[in-house]
Amino acid sequence: MAALVKQLLKANRTSHAFYSTNVALTTSRYPGLKRKEFGVVVDKDVKFFENIVGAPNVIRSDLDGYNTDWLRTVRGESETVLRPGCVEEVSALVKYCYERNLAICPQGGNTGLVGGSVPVFDEVILSTERLNKIKSIDPTAGILQCEAGCVLETLDEELSKHDLMMPLDLGAKGSCHIGGNLSTNAGGIRLLRYGSLHGNTLGLEVVLANGEILDNMNPLIKDNTGYDLKHLFIGAEGTLGLITAATIKCPTRPSSINAAMIGVEKFETCLKVLSLTKKYVGEILSGFEFMDLATRQVVCDNLGLSYPLAEFPYYLLIETSGSDEEHDKAKLDTLLEHLMGNELIADGTVARDVTQRKHMWTLRETAAEALLHDGYCYKYDISLPQPVWYDLVREMRTRIEGSAALRCIGYGHLGDGNLHLNITSAEYDQHVMDLIEPFLYDWTSAHNGSISAEHGLGFKKKQYIYHSKSKEMVNLMKVLKQTLDPKGILNPYKYLPEG
Amino acid sequence: MAALVKQLLKANRTSHAFYSTNVALTTSRYPGLKRKEFGVVVDKDVKFFENIVGAPNVIRSDLDGYNTDWLRTVRGESETVLRPGCVEEVSALVKYCYERNLAICPQGGNTGLVGGSVPVFDEVILSTERLNKIKSIDPTAGILQCEAGCVLETLDEELSKHDLMMPLDLGAKGSCHIGGNLSTNAGGIRLLRYGSLHGNTLGLEVVLANGEILDNMNPLIKDNTGYDLKHLFIGAEGTLGLITAATIKCPTRPSSINAAMIGVEKFETCLKVLSLTKKYVGEILSGFEFMDLATRQVVCDNLGLSYPLAEFPYYLLIETSGSDEEHDKAKLDTLLEHLMGNELIADGTVARDVTQRKHMWTLRETAAEALLHDGYCYKYDISLPQPVWYDLVREMRTRIEGSAALRCIGYGHLGDGNLHLNITSAEYDQHVMDLIEPFLYDWTSAHNGSISAEHGLGFKKKQYIYHSKSKEMVNLMKVLKQTLDPKGILNPYKYLPEG
Repeated sequence: MAALVKQLLKANRTSHAFYSTNVALTTSRYPGLKRKEFGVVVDKDVKFFENIVGAPNVIRSDLDGYNTDWLRTVRGESETVLRPGCVEEVSALVKYCYERNLAICPQGGNTGLVGGSVPVFDEVILSTERLNKIKSIDPTAGILQCEAGCVLETLDEELSKHDLMMPLDLGAKGSCHIGGNLSTNAGGIRLLRYGSLHGNTLGLEVVLANGEILDNMNPLIKDNTGYDLKHLFIGAEGTLGLITAATIKCPTRPSSINAAMIGVEKFETCLKVLSLTKKYVGEILSGFEFMDLATRQVVCDNLGLSYPLAEFPYYLLIETSGSDEEHDKAKLDTLLEHLMGNELIADGTVARDVTQRKHMWTLRETAAEALLHDGYCYKYDISLPQPVWYDLVREMRTRIEGSAALRCIGYGHLGDGNLHLNITSAEYDQHVMDLIEPFLYDWTSAHNGSISAEHGLGFKKKQYIYHSKSKEMVNLMKVLKQTLDPKGILNPYKYLPEG
Repeated sequence: MAALVKQLLKANRTSHAFYSTNVALTTSRYPGLKRKEFGVVVDKDVKFFENIVGAPNVIRSDLDGYNTDWLRTVRGESETVLRPGCVEEVSALVKYCYERNLAICPQGGNTGLVGGSVPVFDEVILSTERLNKIKSIDPTAGILQCEAGCVLETLDEELSKHDLMMPLDLGAKGSCHIGGNLSTNAGGIRLLRYGSLHGNTLGLEVVLANGEILDNMNPLIKDNTGYDLKHLFIGAEGTLGLITAATIKCPTRPSSINAAMIGVEKFETCLKVLSLTKKYVGEILSGFEFMDLATRQVVCDNLGLSYPLAEFPYYLLIETSGSDEEHDKAKLDTLLEHLMGNELIADGTVARDVTQRKHMWTLRETAAEALLHDGYCYKYDISLPQPVWYDLVREMRTRIEGSAALRCIGYGHLGDGNLHLNITSAEYDQHVMDLIEPFLYDWTSAHNGSISAEHGLGFKKKQYIYHSKSKEMVNLMKVLKQTLDPKGILNPYKYLPEG
């Protein structure tokens, strides 16, 4: 039985296996790292774990897929993966680890982009993949209750049966777990319309560092009784507690979705288009995405995709979601007529059917994957005030000229100020890295931006937190961490800077 | 100069003065209360305060308006009101109070309903009324930055000049301060559409118990760098820190607002109407309010208002806000036709103009004020699952029959599950109170509700927190309070239960 499960798991991890070859160990790439004085998993621990979750759910070999991040940039050395099936099992495991001083790396779909979901040394990996039950869906109130390991896309599909939808959507939806989305405060492409997870999460079930269960799952839209503790854990990347289940407010699923792609000659015009889109399309606007010409090139070169428009310096993808097809189309047409009439846009096309609309989104959403085909990707996720938004891409291009860098592309959620800036090279190149960092963080800080808009800090960005947060704020964060996880066993080496 | 300012202040407080006569001191009504071992304000403290904020802004007489809550149910005995004019002054005052162990009661517009904004004993009142500057409005990004003492309605009026609006609206908008709204996580009538303050607040400036300033005002919609500390202070009722300024995401102001009022014979039908309203009106729904016949009667009896419909057991007020008048009207008409055609509603009327629409809202929003004219109001603010929502009103009516109670009315935000249940008597009556509490809290808890949906806990509800939150959660709250305010000087005697 155990062998069969392991075999199945191995099959499930095939796509991950691709990424685990040739990835340097994190401890090799970052030689200054020092393992903290946590315990080491020994036979008696394995026996205890097996007793709690069953032998098939304590995995001790073929862990490359669990140890390596999706971007192939960091690789840990864990020898133990635990797959609990309910909150009581999570609680028992964490309580035991706390007592034994064993460090834990929580892992959802392992789609994170900052090395937060894989171990650095030999932390025990606590995977949410078996916590995948939908607890309830209330169609009238629009409320979902589910476990942390549910895949985002699966949840959305289940909700669609009740004319509801998930309030977030992102490229990794087919693999990412809702627990990981919550732990990283995932933003994605529809935040513009439906808001953040801090706004949409009604309740959480959390296991604290000492194994205690905090149950705050009541499906109430309003509840002002005491500190709203759930917000502590949303976006905390598993460093204050492990999210095991959530209650989420889900919007009514739109019956009509439309999309248009337009080509623009100047960046400044993109901002004018944004203002006018908010005005003409108003309450049905559900996406306002930006791609530059280099983004077009990477998906065409590396994935063989094609754009429905000729070459322009900038593209915008505008999506509407509403309840009345006729009204929505009229609003989008009025917008496009206005943009064309005022010569704000060079060309544009409205998706005629679902296939065309999905293709437009594919052009946007596969950019991250296409970049990996170049070799190594230096990935940045920045929030910037809109007027200076694209300046950073331009400056970076000038900066890396003549280096081993292959491309520098900019795309992202212009509607909410979130720029994804990516640079590639055939393989990891320290000179390219030195051209990028800390310049990029300094520039962002100087322009009142955030050095991580939605990807979080994880392992790779923790030392840059001071570029976005004051010393007083980071100190208070450390106090909270010390208070909730005094032994520091939850997702160590990440999120907050040392010292 | 000082005398003039005091005179002006007294004039401003005239409306409050009405409420301050004949209100029993909190220490008399709750004889078990014990003053904690805080310092007492003496002359040298007054001198220090005057040195920081100027003599006119240290008020030491005629403090009834500051000591008494809007509902005339609690009255403190503070002898010192401080009115700082900037965050540095707040910081200096709080630092001094921390060192001198002087307790502080923060106060905004003093429109709270649970005794949270007035002192219990002689706490120093720190008023936000001079922190009333708008720092910036970014029309393209839709972002407001302002100080804590700005009045909600004033902010909304300023935003209207840029086609923006505040994401929250409530009955007290003409007096309440945004700092108080944030500190109580005010919900109000448009939460259904625009979400909670946890979702709409991008940043806060907060003064901690030791006087340290946390500046997190950056106007970024996405920023995942570290624990999102602002959520600690939203809804914390000033017990963890004092909010001095905020950055708020503001929606585009709708160009078209419509409203309809309908009469319904059965409560169950109200829920069917809610489902159908979500379906037909969809993305433009901005209000779904409920009033029972007794709510109609109290505004008619005590304020002389009149309803546009005949008498029905239940009324619903449906509001839409959108960007296209023609589309919006068509959607609302289709809904009403469907409701009438299926005989779900007994009668209904659409507001023909702004005056009629405002009148409909007056009928809903003046209920709280109308109740006060009866004498004493026992006020409850409950979240309940919609199927059992009105059962509580029915049960309570049966329970108080034959007592000194004058009325028992139910109204509220049915769209988000928030019921305002109110009972009145000519004056405070312990027998009536004993019929209500703890029955009402037990009933709510047994039906998985919240004993405070949006009013908070303040002084009057803190002991009922366990009806909505587990022991583990309250313990963690106490740890947070102890960590952030070790001397307990911020808004003591409130929010968390003793022991």
